[in-house]
Amino acid sequence: MRSVSLASTLALVAQLASAQTFQRLGACPKLGCILPPDQTDFLSGQLFDIRVEVHAPVNGSEASNNGVPDEKFTFCIAHEKGDCVEAQKFFKLKDSPAVEKWSFTYFEDLFTKDAGTPVLVNAATKAYRALSLTQPGSYTAQLKYNNGSKTLANWVVRKPQTKRQAKNVLFFIGDGMTQSMITAARLIAHKAINGKYQTLMQMDQMENLGHQMTHSIDSFITDSANSATALYTGKKSTVNALNVWRDSSADPLDDPKVETIAELFRRKIGGALGIVSTAFIADATPAALCTHTRERGQAQVVVQEYLNSAEYINSTIKWPTGCKQPDVIFGGGAEYFIPGPNSPNGTDYYKAFQDKGYKVVYDKDQLAAASKNEKTLGIFSARNGLIILPQNLKGHKDSPTGDGSDATNQPGLKDMTLKAIEILQARSKKDGWFLMYRFFCIDGMSEGASIDKMMHVLDYDRALGELLELDDTIRASIAYLKKIGELDNTLIVVTADHGHGFDVFGGADTKYLNAQSTDRKKRGAVGVYQNSGLSGYMVADGSLPTNQTIVYGPQGPNFPVQWNPRYALAAGFGASPDRRETYGLNLEGPRVPATSGTDGFVVNPADNQGGFIVSGTLPVGEAQGVHSLTDVSVFANGPGSDAFRGVYNSVDIFFKIADALALGKN
Amino acid sequence: MRSVSLASTLALVAQLASAQTFQRLGACPKLGCILPPDQTDFLSGQLFDIRVEVHAPVNGSEASNNGVPDEKFTFCIAHEKGDCVEAQKFFKLKDSPAVEKWSFTYFEDLFTKDAGTPVLVNAATKAYRALSLTQPGSYTAQLKYNNGSKTLANWVVRKPQTKRQAKNVLFFIGDGMTQSMITAARLIAHKAINGKYQTLMQMDQMENLGHQMTHSIDSFITDSANSATALYTGKKSTVNALNVWRDSSADPLDDPKVETIAELFRRKIGGALGIVSTAFIADATPAALCTHTRERGQAQVVVQEYLNSAEYINSTIKWPTGCKQPDVIFGGGAEYFIPGPNSPNGTDYYKAFQDKGYKVVYDKDQLAAASKNEKTLGIFSARNGLIILPQNLKGHKDSPTGDGSDATNQPGLKDMTLKAIEILQARSKKDGWFLMYRFFCIDGMSEGASIDKMMHVLDYDRALGELLELDDTIRASIAYLKKIGELDNTLIVVTADHGHGFDVFGGADTKYLNAQSTDRKKRGAVGVYQNSGLSGYMVADGSLPTNQTIVYGPQGPNFPVQWNPRYALAAGFGASPDRRETYGLNLEGPRVPATSGTDGFVVNPADNQGGFIVSGTLPVGEAQGVHSLTDVSVFANGPGSDAFRGVYNSVDIFFKIADALALGKN
Repeated sequence: MRSVSLASTLALVAQLASAQTFQRLGACPKLGCILPPDQTDFLSGQLFDIRVEVHAPVNGSEASNNGVPDEKFTFCIAHEKGDCVEAQKFFKLKDSPAVEKWSFTYFEDLFTKDAGTPVLVNAATKAYRALSLTQPGSYTAQLKYNNGSKTLANWVVRKPQTKRQAKNVLFFIGDGMTQSMITAARLIAHKAINGKYQTLMQMDQMENLGHQMTHSIDSFITDSANSATALYTGKKSTVNALNVWRDSSADPLDDPKVETIAELFRRKIGGALGIVSTAFIADATPAALCTHTRERGQAQVVVQEYLNSAEYINSTIKWPTGCKQPDVIFGGGAEYFIPGPNSPNGTDYYKAFQDKGYKVVYDKDQLAAASKNEKTLGIFSARNGLIILPQNLKGHKDSPTGDGSDATNQPGLKDMTLKAIEILQARSKKDGWFLMYRFFCIDGMSEGASIDKMMHVLDYDRALGELLELDDTIRASIAYLKKIGELDNTLIVVTADHGHGFDVFGGADTKYLNAQSTDRKKRGAVGVYQNSGLSGYMVADGSLPTNQTIVYGPQGPNFPVQWNPRYALAAGFGASPDRRETYGLNLEGPRVPATSGTDGFVVNPADNQGGFIVSGTLPVGEAQGVHSLTDVSVFANGPGSDAFRGVYNSVDIFFKIADALALGKN
Repeated sequence: MRSVSLASTLALVAQLASAQTFQRLGACPKLGCILPPDQTDFLSGQLFDIRVEVHAPVNGSEASNNGVPDEKFTFCIAHEKGDCVEAQKFFKLKDSPAVEKWSFTYFEDLFTKDAGTPVLVNAATKAYRALSLTQPGSYTAQLKYNNGSKTLANWVVRKPQTKRQAKNVLFFIGDGMTQSMITAARLIAHKAINGKYQTLMQMDQMENLGHQMTHSIDSFITDSANSATALYTGKKSTVNALNVWRDSSADPLDDPKVETIAELFRRKIGGALGIVSTAFIADATPAALCTHTRERGQAQVVVQEYLNSAEYINSTIKWPTGCKQPDVIFGGGAEYFIPGPNSPNGTDYYKAFQDKGYKVVYDKDQLAAASKNEKTLGIFSARNGLIILPQNLKGHKDSPTGDGSDATNQPGLKDMTLKAIEILQARSKKDGWFLMYRFFCIDGMSEGASIDKMMHVLDYDRALGELLELDDTIRASIAYLKKIGELDNTLIVVTADHGHGFDVFGGADTKYLNAQSTDRKKRGAVGVYQNSGLSGYMVADGSLPTNQTIVYGPQGPNFPVQWNPRYALAAGFGASPDRRETYGLNLEGPRVPATSGTDGFVVNPADNQGGFIVSGTLPVGEAQGVHSLTDVSVFANGPGSDAFRGVYNSVDIFFKIADALALGKN
């Protein structure tokens, strides 16, 4: 340990409590922790768990009590100005939960991490399960410990809407879709004449516009798991957490849970529920509708929770709500269903779904032929699936049946959405339906070659193509809802879960760039301001071979007619690994900007050959771009959509949807 | 000249017409040009000039007619489905304008620029001056030339609102202020507890939210001149142009003009007009209210037009409208008033203003003492002035009187705004007033040391500080309007003129960064996702000397309490010159990221010492960051503000304000 003076120790404590690289426990700057933490808002009747913890660090700047945590802590709750009532009594619980004890370690900063000197923390804790608050108003939870230390948490139960406005909800999430990307997608796919667009994105034409703040509870940059948690539960959480507040235990399944919009919709209304994703169906954003775990990576838990919410792998903790077998689940990720190392307990999980009454479909034809009256599981490929480039469908051996063939007969994105609406509509009767549609590919984070559009790998051509597919699907959904007479009954919300620090800053003459001999001369190909020019993506150019043109299918009217123009967008990211830029389309497939070097990631020698090298701004351990801070846009149509105007926190989206459905009504 | 095959020549032509680095003439892909071009919308009664041109390139890919332009072109206009009537007759002009002839050159691409082989173009043209269209509906202008070639321009006169909703308009422009910056400013200046902000930006709380598309007429990235033109006239134009469409002549003052919102307000209503800027008052964004020139750099013309709209230096072209001596002009730029090389004709332009009845004030005390009943010119420093850091006020010899002393007694930003409103309110009677408030510093482009907050020089600490000042000024203005009983009569619009590709992507442990020995190890100080942490800017930290804290004055409640925390924002730009990053505050003053090297700009050896080097993405001739594509936000309150919801073109803002004031009523 470094030797530090008292003055600098105090300064260090102040900083650690406020803005550190690593934290002892998120949302717990003091040694006593209450989860749900201070500032939590609830929907009336929403189920949640409570965890309280008392920490005693053995070493480090907060070392206290010789490392022995106070087990005699007390925990009480007051409603409005009433007395603080001991928790067991307040919630009328038969038993008081037992004190649990464990230890964990963390690093106070990067210096101690380099030195390999973590802090050891001993903890004494209790958990209260499956509670709810129904009376609107303010609550104060109070944890007393260490002879007079006190941690307070102010909670609010918001006054719920009692009149249901929306029968159905169609919720689109463009993962990582920032406004700068929507602007760039408009530029490459919609014709403009002298500064006036001749057509607009469907998103541009939605009735209501808002902005949401995406940050986590304990860091200002979020990942997709905890940002989805915010959208679906109205609660901020920690990176990687799905519908739980992260506690300090080793078990990722015992963290305090909170009920999602989908679970509330099933429990309180009983309408039809659908989940469609362009990624593997166990990934964070779709999983966040139904799953409760601190680790988004637990795909088996996710798959299991779709089917039976109360059963956990490695846990006996019951959760008396759940998604109760969604009517529609469409996506990739066959490896979690095919019996084997990835499926729950090694069992055949297709069969598990069939045993519960699901029709299982594996390709486009089966999807088209499926009855609209049955619960339907559609798994169309292994891994991330749902490939857009037809020529990329071969050689992956990613058949959803696990027979080793290629998944070459996958449905189009619009096929899936419209079929999902058709099934939900048929099965919902008067109760209405809730459909979540998530476009994963904009954000990327691909594990395989099957995702071909990614912002993370700085492949913005493909990311923008995916964004245009999302927009096209929204347009088709609106048309379909109109056709079946449900448009005026349906709240449609389109948003993102976080940003990517991307923007277009000019045009690049790719021909000139490639003809130059040095990195510095190549940069002269970039035209800024008046030299940025006009969009070359909307000008058909027969001079290039057609195999250099990405073809999206089904082809909508609002896609680039030329994906690889000589005069391309020059765009970039505030944060990236070392990389090489040509600003042209990566013809061979998705970009891999960096590869492993001797001391971390370095420029991939095979990427963007002929370009110029740009040194990165991220830690050398990062191979890809990262999420960013910026508020993201919200577009909304239909009953209840007025509430989506203006600027608000991501958690407010949950309350706005819940209010449109009157889910907080008692 | 390079030898090219026929096929590639054809491809080249197709590309040149659509998306080139350089253009023959913006908004004119054919050899016949009509300005105003195709897709122009007008307010009923708005004054404008017309210029038609016929080009005959002598060489290059478009070479035609042996370089002799057709002087016998014809030009006619049709209303709705009516006959196309020859222009002189259509507009009932006494005389037909004479044919003018000139030549100009341009480069077809970067290869011909490197080779020094420009295209020579001969042009035959005509100009029609000070016209207007009053009947709503569509118009088609038609230019015939070269024995049957035809260029069409479709114009629309929008149906105007006839009921005036707003008495006053307060229009704030945060130059270059993108949503990602607003998000970052919120993070460093507003306290959040567990993911919930305890206070919000004033912008966050405005009633209506919109997005505007900022691109130019002939390039997708704009500068501040032509984006201001879009906001003030409802017409897209070219980079550097102020309230004109750029023609191909050598004279920057003969380009076809269009009437601004301020000119319309003065001509049709006669209310009071105010212009306040934190930059020199002749700079593009304030100048765009009253000035008509192709070159924003013509500060003398700008100053002259404030005083007498119909007189141009070097031009005899009359313009029968104008700002007619705004009631309030506050800003910097004394060098254009002090008699000398920069003032119009070398004369004393303070005296010129005094001769027209202006009270001239030079400092804070004079401003406070000024009568609210007089037209007032307040010039508080030379150059960009309006310094925020008190300790930076000395040594610049920038006294507005030109006596060689320092301008140490400058008014605060709120002082200026509230005084401006006070004067406008007193002078406007029942006609109402229009005040444009422009925060230049967010965008930067500083010429002197006097601007200390700049996105262009990548000094985002200072840029965000300026953004917070803007927000504080909006808050104070709303409070003042409420106090004087004018809040409900006043349309308040806050927006930006273009983007900067900026975003926050994590936190940086500046102490760790500085302690590392190599660039790659320094990058390890950046924490992303969960390691981004919380805002260190809202935690007072006595461990740092107070002189490391920026103090903004007057100090509002919503500013960082600590500008230089150990755990700082890690943020960046998609486009930059070569630079060095520490992510800490630049203590000595505004950042200068790059300096001249042997082959363009290189990392400034004096900037961010101890940081790591990041190679740039911009041409090496660029010393600073550049504008970006992203849509920017619009926030609006008050009568007529509902119209600012949703997504629209920058030009629509002019029409929305004009409609709130019923300026198109006949």
